[in-house]
Amino acid sequence: VTSSGLVIIGGSDAGVMAALWAKDRAPELPVTLVVRHAYPNFSICGIPFYVSGETPEWPMLAHRTVDDLEALGLRLLLNHEATGIDPIERSVTVIDRDGDALTLGYDMLVIGTGAEPVRPPLPGIDLPGVHVLHTIDQARRLHDVVLDGTKRAALIGAGYVGTEMADALTTRGLEVTVIEMAPAVLTTFDPDLGDIVGAELQRHGVTVACDQRVERIEKHGDGSLRVVGTPNLDVAADVVLVAVGVRPETELARHAGVHTNERGAIVVDRRMATNLEHVWAAGDCVHTHHILVDKPLYLPLGTTAHKQGRIAGLNAAGADHAFAGSCGTQAVKVFELVAARTGFRGIEAQAAGFDALSVTVEVDDHKAYYPGSTKIVTRLTGDRRSGRLLGAQIIGAYGAEISKRSDIIAAALHHRANIESLNDLDLSYTPPLSSPWDPVHVAAQAWLRAAR
Amino acid sequence: VTSSGLVIIGGSDAGVMAALWAKDRAPELPVTLVVRHAYPNFSICGIPFYVSGETPEWPMLAHRTVDDLEALGLRLLLNHEATGIDPIERSVTVIDRDGDALTLGYDMLVIGTGAEPVRPPLPGIDLPGVHVLHTIDQARRLHDVVLDGTKRAALIGAGYVGTEMADALTTRGLEVTVIEMAPAVLTTFDPDLGDIVGAELQRHGVTVACDQRVERIEKHGDGSLRVVGTPNLDVAADVVLVAVGVRPETELARHAGVHTNERGAIVVDRRMATNLEHVWAAGDCVHTHHILVDKPLYLPLGTTAHKQGRIAGLNAAGADHAFAGSCGTQAVKVFELVAARTGFRGIEAQAAGFDALSVTVEVDDHKAYYPGSTKIVTRLTGDRRSGRLLGAQIIGAYGAEISKRSDIIAAALHHRANIESLNDLDLSYTPPLSSPWDPVHVAAQAWLRAAR
Repeated sequence: VTSSGLVIIGGSDAGVMAALWAKDRAPELPVTLVVRHAYPNFSICGIPFYVSGETPEWPMLAHRTVDDLEALGLRLLLNHEATGIDPIERSVTVIDRDGDALTLGYDMLVIGTGAEPVRPPLPGIDLPGVHVLHTIDQARRLHDVVLDGTKRAALIGAGYVGTEMADALTTRGLEVTVIEMAPAVLTTFDPDLGDIVGAELQRHGVTVACDQRVERIEKHGDGSLRVVGTPNLDVAADVVLVAVGVRPETELARHAGVHTNERGAIVVDRRMATNLEHVWAAGDCVHTHHILVDKPLYLPLGTTAHKQGRIAGLNAAGADHAFAGSCGTQAVKVFELVAARTGFRGIEAQAAGFDALSVTVEVDDHKAYYPGSTKIVTRLTGDRRSGRLLGAQIIGAYGAEISKRSDIIAAALHHRANIESLNDLDLSYTPPLSSPWDPVHVAAQAWLRAAR
Repeated sequence: VTSSGLVIIGGSDAGVMAALWAKDRAPELPVTLVVRHAYPNFSICGIPFYVSGETPEWPMLAHRTVDDLEALGLRLLLNHEATGIDPIERSVTVIDRDGDALTLGYDMLVIGTGAEPVRPPLPGIDLPGVHVLHTIDQARRLHDVVLDGTKRAALIGAGYVGTEMADALTTRGLEVTVIEMAPAVLTTFDPDLGDIVGAELQRHGVTVACDQRVERIEKHGDGSLRVVGTPNLDVAADVVLVAVGVRPETELARHAGVHTNERGAIVVDRRMATNLEHVWAAGDCVHTHHILVDKPLYLPLGTTAHKQGRIAGLNAAGADHAFAGSCGTQAVKVFELVAARTGFRGIEAQAAGFDALSVTVEVDDHKAYYPGSTKIVTRLTGDRRSGRLLGAQIIGAYGAEISKRSDIIAAALHHRANIESLNDLDLSYTPPLSSPWDPVHVAAQAWLRAAR
């Protein structure tokens, strides 16, 4: 086994970013990317739009093609599965499609094995017609089923993926039911805000079944599936999609002696270093430093994977960067609505020990005298004791600059702003796009009044 | 003369904000607003949209109506002109429409007299058909002229107002020529970026005449006007609109002994206090603290007037707040384009003593595999010595979240961010609205590469 520079396990966001930024810092460094499938650098976040037909061809979902990546000097081992890491020998064993093994020496190793969708232990979960969606192959299978005349879809789980897929399948003409255990869809938002998105789903014909616990999936004589549960769940469907979250895929790392936490996520420091020398990790397989708390959280997100991958790659190539941390920023478009959040909402802030106060304002996205204004709901959360900004949830129309308004809050959070200073920001105004006091300011002012 | 609490001279952004925030802090405080005309709290920024017809009725431009303001407990003296301030007696003399004088005692005074449009000393500037646009009355006159079959308009000055009015008058069906002394329109942007907006004007049929110095306006026998100048300017028009900036309206204040600077703007401290006891000032009549330099600048903007008015009102009512400062943020929509800027551009940064480096990137506003993506041009300016973020200019399609992307930069500027930390921000991503690295990140990365 001879050393082969930097070896990266995983060809998704974190792995590819580690490769590209390592090359950026050290152009001569040999970089090998071990990819289990044939689709490196694919946008998993784009799958709903391929299923909906808005993205006509699945190869369009690639951030970069294989040719792009090879042109950047990366060695790609596609359809190669890493089966073992030897941290003493500094080598990785990989197996190709034919089952042939290969041992790769490394100077530095980045683990970017990502996450896998949770498959709840439900009777019927393995029935044909029950889909879990995480890979391009799975997406292509579902896409073909949808085009094959499928009429009714049941979605178990109404988080980001579930609500986006409800939109996508409705757009394809299916009758869609979303099933959610929690009292409202979009469970990373406060339930009354999730209800706004729930109403948007219903407005487009989606049946929304919240507060329902799935007990089993049944197959009936006519070939149709039924999702059955309590208190009163019985949904007939031709296709069932399970989207109840992901868990870190870290078995390979654990077997090599890499420390993981109680959730199974790899433990890393701010430099993305694991407990093993020369071994780094990034992306959905690691826990995440959150800027508002010292305790690491598990927040698997593509944006975070990009940033962590960058840090891991730079450091593996000899730099000394630290991951600045996540605010838990997320955005989703569901039909005509956009919902974005950043930082903590009230319940999360309270759990983290803050004296959380949340206020909600509903104001025009821009001056009502200019055509097309719509109402934006902004809920701002801050710490009553210190006045510190803790987070925001913003919902409004697609086109109303919802996501980048949330990013104003994210930028302020990053700098540990208080809510007074949020109100002081010199934000842009022109009547077609805002008001002299932006909705962000109006929310800050309402918070300050409520906190008196 | 008996004291009448807080007296405010001026009924536009700064004056009304001072009144409302003083009332917010001290509900029992009598607040009198002296307004020269009958239109308090009108949105001057909305005038182009009334002229264009997008805002059908001029009263819609009121942020709040007279009734709204009176219901909030304010005493309004409409059509009253303040003619003198006696800082010893603490009184203001006002004259009503009939020429009758009234003396108002004050405990605290806020001066919010605003700015007036510059009327360049051109031969012909006073001809009928030559308009200057700043008040509602002026807007109504222009509006009526436009509806009265006017065919050709010449605009002198292609800043924010000039480019917006070019859009508005074109939308009304006029043939429009914009005339600009500088090499490009939108002179608060770098010329090559201004040219993007110039091309958008031309795409919609506007004639753009840059590098042209107007020498005179002539009236011809057929009643038409001609704008004549060098090197080769000769534009025939039925209506001429002059929009070459504003200057602070501070004669009243100066006569009372209020200090003004070399540009005629009132000198205030961060608390918006003037040199005279009990006298505060805010808005377009004062100079502005800029967050990037210690030297005050004159940056008359509605957003700043709102913030300064708030501070003046709170402090006049007994609080002790400081104006946090402006970044010079501005945004404008011209036809299908939005241009936004915040902080310093290269030439401004260099003049302020920074070692300015600017880089430009042009990337998709969101993932190209989702329909409707457009290119955003982002120019980022930073200080090469310190890595500090200094500003951005962003241009892209209306709907591509240009203005609130610029506000991410404004938030970072407020917190004295460096460009490395701009790249670390946890910004939102969903394929219909962004990319895992937002255009803001991509610009930061390009800057960091260029600065190596």
